[in-house]
Amino acid sequence: MDCPLCSLPPEQVVWEDDRCRVIRVDDAAHPGFCRVVWREHVAEMTDLMPADRQHLLDIVMATESALRGLLHPDKINLASFGNMVPHLHWHVIPRYRDDRHYPESIWGAPQREGIAHAGAEAVALARAIEAALSPRSH
Amino acid sequence: MDCPLCSLPPEQVVWEDDRCRVIRVDDAAHPGFCRVVWREHVAEMTDLMPADRQHLLDIVMATESALRGLLHPDKINLASFGNMVPHLHWHVIPRYRDDRHYPESIWGAPQREGIAHAGAEAVALARAIEAALSPRSH
Repeated sequence: MDCPLCSLPPEQVVWEDDRCRVIRVDDAAHPGFCRVVWREHVAEMTDLMPADRQHLLDIVMATESALRGLLHPDKINLASFGNMVPHLHWHVIPRYRDDRHYPESIWGAPQREGIAHAGAEAVALARAIEAALSPRSH
Repeated sequence: MDCPLCSLPPEQVVWEDDRCRVIRVDDAAHPGFCRVVWREHVAEMTDLMPADRQHLLDIVMATESALRGLLHPDKINLASFGNMVPHLHWHVIPRYRDDRHYPESIWGAPQREGIAHAGAEAVALARAIEAALSPRSH
């Protein structure tokens, strides 16, 4: 099986545990774009046991919290498709009113050249994800 | 505030409780397309308290389970954007290899005319969501 999400370049990984990894996506138009990738090669959320599903969604929510806290985007976009790579992963994307696609999804038609806002530094992002996962933050 | 998701046409609602509603989306190219809409007008998942966030995701997962059980799509797509309508809602979309946009997201460029597969009947969908929410199904 030749799946690009089964083996990730270590330099892209900003946070990981025994069940999932958070990576930064190299997208010049959408800095701060992260993916949360389940380690095991499964296709759908409802293929996971409820406790694993919950864990993955906790990491997605912690990534959303981290990006909001660091970058203050106008909106967060969340998506899990897997049409091209059927290995369970979530896109977590900070969006800005003046970015290339707003208010379309980033998979839609570009609306303008777009302003490239600042991205998130890997160490700061890892710390913010940890902080969002801490019980004290809830 | 004139938000189309604050007041939904009752005939679109297939399932509801005191916190959220599931509606069927009228999209000829993507039958079975559902939205799970949080009742309160909030923008982001991380604006919700963790228990509410969990509840909404439980309904999204139940809707995914229901659509998989009824329609057997090739893939489920999940997304929460809110760029156009910043009222928290999730798209739950059955996808087929021969649909209009596959493997692109449904917000991307059409790939072909596309086959319109069968949709889900409202009563059957409501029952399947209830069944997926039942503790016995976990």
